Amino acid sequence: MNFITGTYTDQYQLTMAQVYFHNNGAEQEAVFDYFFRKSPFKGGYTIFAGLENLIDILEDLSFSKKDIDFLKAQGFDQKFLQYLKDFKFTGKVYSVNEGDIVFPTRPVVRIEGNIIEAQIIETLLLNILNFQSLIATKASRIRLVAPNQTLLDFGMRRAHALGSYHASRAAIIGGFDASSHVMAGRDFGIPVSGTMAHSFVQSYDDELSAFRAFAKARPDDCVLLVDTYDTLKSGVPNVIKVAKEMEAEGHKLNGVRLDSGDLAYLAKKSRKMLDQEGLEYVKIAASNQLDEYVIKSLLEQEAPIDVMGIGTSLVTGKPDAALDGVYKLAYTKGKARIKLSENKAKVTLPGKKQVYRLRDNQQHLIGADVVTLEDEDLVNEMFHPFEADKSLKFADCHQEPLLKMVMKNGKRINKAKSLTEIQKYSKERLAEFPIEFKRFDNPHIYKIGLSKKLMDLRNRLIS
Amino acid sequence: MNFITGTYTDQYQLTMAQVYFHNNGAEQEAVFDYFFRKSPFKGGYTIFAGLENLIDILEDLSFSKKDIDFLKAQGFDQKFLQYLKDFKFTGKVYSVNEGDIVFPTRPVVRIEGNIIEAQIIETLLLNILNFQSLIATKASRIRLVAPNQTLLDFGMRRAHALGSYHASRAAIIGGFDASSHVMAGRDFGIPVSGTMAHSFVQSYDDELSAFRAFAKARPDDCVLLVDTYDTLKSGVPNVIKVAKEMEAEGHKLNGVRLDSGDLAYLAKKSRKMLDQEGLEYVKIAASNQLDEYVIKSLLEQEAPIDVMGIGTSLVTGKPDAALDGVYKLAYTKGKARIKLSENKAKVTLPGKKQVYRLRDNQQHLIGADVVTLEDEDLVNEMFHPFEADKSLKFADCHQEPLLKMVMKNGKRINKAKSLTEIQKYSKERLAEFPIEFKRFDNPHIYKIGLSKKLMDLRNRLIS
Repeated sequence: MNFITGTYTDQYQLTMAQVYFHNNGAEQEAVFDYFFRKSPFKGGYTIFAGLENLIDILEDLSFSKKDIDFLKAQGFDQKFLQYLKDFKFTGKVYSVNEGDIVFPTRPVVRIEGNIIEAQIIETLLLNILNFQSLIATKASRIRLVAPNQTLLDFGMRRAHALGSYHASRAAIIGGFDASSHVMAGRDFGIPVSGTMAHSFVQSYDDELSAFRAFAKARPDDCVLLVDTYDTLKSGVPNVIKVAKEMEAEGHKLNGVRLDSGDLAYLAKKSRKMLDQEGLEYVKIAASNQLDEYVIKSLLEQEAPIDVMGIGTSLVTGKPDAALDGVYKLAYTKGKARIKLSENKAKVTLPGKKQVYRLRDNQQHLIGADVVTLEDEDLVNEMFHPFEADKSLKFADCHQEPLLKMVMKNGKRINKAKSLTEIQKYSKERLAEFPIEFKRFDNPHIYKIGLSKKLMDLRNRLIS
Repeated sequence: MNFITGTYTDQYQLTMAQVYFHNNGAEQEAVFDYFFRKSPFKGGYTIFAGLENLIDILEDLSFSKKDIDFLKAQGFDQKFLQYLKDFKFTGKVYSVNEGDIVFPTRPVVRIEGNIIEAQIIETLLLNILNFQSLIATKASRIRLVAPNQTLLDFGMRRAHALGSYHASRAAIIGGFDASSHVMAGRDFGIPVSGTMAHSFVQSYDDELSAFRAFAKARPDDCVLLVDTYDTLKSGVPNVIKVAKEMEAEGHKLNGVRLDSGDLAYLAKKSRKMLDQEGLEYVKIAASNQLDEYVIKSLLEQEAPIDVMGIGTSLVTGKPDAALDGVYKLAYTKGKARIKLSENKAKVTLPGKKQVYRLRDNQQHLIGADVVTLEDEDLVNEMFHPFEADKSLKFADCHQEPLLKMVMKNGKRINKAKSLTEIQKYSKERLAEFPIEFKRFDNPHIYKIGLSKKLMDLRNRLIS
């Protein structure tokens, strides 16, 4: 994406990078972990998203002339600016597969490079991964309560400006069917969807004329918005007229859209009015302040809604609005590194690490991921990250390594995955988790354990 | 901005545009209003932001080859695609000044153009203005509780991906001093700010060496992060050593930054330790989950914090996460238009309108804006928008028209305003409002009234 260049970062990354540069930082290996501390929405899981975009951005990352001129004016020195002029990301990236289900406190992405490049990319990595993971997770919660509905992302107008672009992509990963965002459709291969707004109806002297004009122009993909004046007294009766006129011409009306009022009540009434006229095939779409809780309630009331358009709460990730992912130094100058904290849970995990997902010999999830040092053999015991006397033994168990190399020497290793592949993979991975981990209230906690070697290393560094 | 092209819109805008196009829409004048229904954060006001970006985008808006190819594949017809190939926004824009204080239900921006162009730009207008107005308002609330502190935007890593870019701009309009976002600094003339992260300290074998290296590299702009290991036992004592070494070299340490723990307690203790060593000049900066409520509490506890870094809650506009701005058709084909709703408050205001801010003859705010038809004379009475028996007379009163033409024939009329100018203007405009409108709990409601002619027009269209 040509929008993102080297200055798409926090100033302090460049400030530190300049100091590293003058202390031979280009030769200093560094390993950083990306992880988060809490699943969003008080939920039990997070869907990891944004990886393919991150890889694309890292492959192309450079400082433009405009960047260099600006940094010069900021007082960065000539030698360092020369380094930035030639800057390319040359490191390795290890990552969980995009779309996989991930949990707090353990590495999701590991960056290895020289300390200058690994530091400079911190902000953009967090900026891209935190947001898409938040939105993919939100989307998946909505999909969970509406497994059989068509789910549409309608959020562009309320999204955080250009953030709308990646929001629409992440919504698909989380299980949505299509988006209204044309540019996201263009660039990410997302099916785009959209029909008419109130303004279209208002722009005609009466609702019936507006419906007729629209139906004439789009005989094979026509959804009519019925609440501009009065849903049941005007909108649906006019729809019925137009639908019959369309039938006479050999076409079928696709659907109606409700966008205000009591959606459960209006959907039931509209369904009845349509069915009484033999229009069982006309679908009902609904939008207006939907989120996973409203949708759950609508479906519990058996509202006959086939298509849901979800906007604000999806694309802004309400109410959390952010995933708290961080990027922490784990290794440099040949030594594992740690960040301490008065809050035990904020002490980082040192060293180069791998994460394994555990399954029993019937391939069922055991309910735990174990974090080990990268170079140790498979382990058969894991320890609670903060309470060392709690441990879990697991013999005869399948261990799937989750971190895989995806970039080497700054280049992508494998062919880029399509959004459809990622969505399908995510769905399969989420399906594997029992409902207890996915319920909204007090979800079951998926365990994260440490290998003995990792725990010992951490304890040694703490003391 | 070359990122935004014609497909930066909702699909339904293009679907409708195609129908308009084939019905002579290029000759059909349309007037749309941008307004919102509720001030964010349960507050009493909103700061309007994003206008200069919107003007820039509209001036350059076109469909790229990539856009056209994509739309062709979507089934849009050849004649309409030809129209889009040559598309330029040719309309007029009337707007409130960027940075002004605005209120629900009355027009903030008015777009006049042919119905095709006016429809196509709806989504991008909402996308840009809703978000920046939300964030500028959030920033202003933080500024209100911290009038004398240096306020820094640190939100890029938790912002909504590319949304971070405009978030940083809006934060400045709301009263922030600087941002960590280098690219936003580059493009919007924002002062950028940033020093060091935990990783820098961790990358050295001990904290003191890290501090020394940083101080040596940045003797005149050095802020040291003190909580990597232990703020009071390690961080501040090491800072004191380095500050004295800097003094011996003729330099002065700029500050320390606290980023975890009880900020009030740590700030007081750190201040005392620094002062005891004659380092009264070393400033204290604090960050970590700050928002207007936390900052208010810190300052009520007299925490000696000079600089605040605010991230997530600022750039995501927590907890609201969106401003509910809408764009409604008010006039077309020579007739005023209305959208009805079962919810009275959602019935739109028809016709081409102007808004006046009322001041008494000492130039004090009366506490009301009045919405009139554009072509009527100054009025001296206004009516409650939903309760026609409530009216307010105002004689001998200054009326400031708020909507001014800013684009004509698709071109900017006046020189672009700098962010500094907009920030200054916004500050002056906000200062004019008594504190009752700005308090966080149950703020006083600023009145919006309608002229008799506008009210009569609306009532006529409703019936």
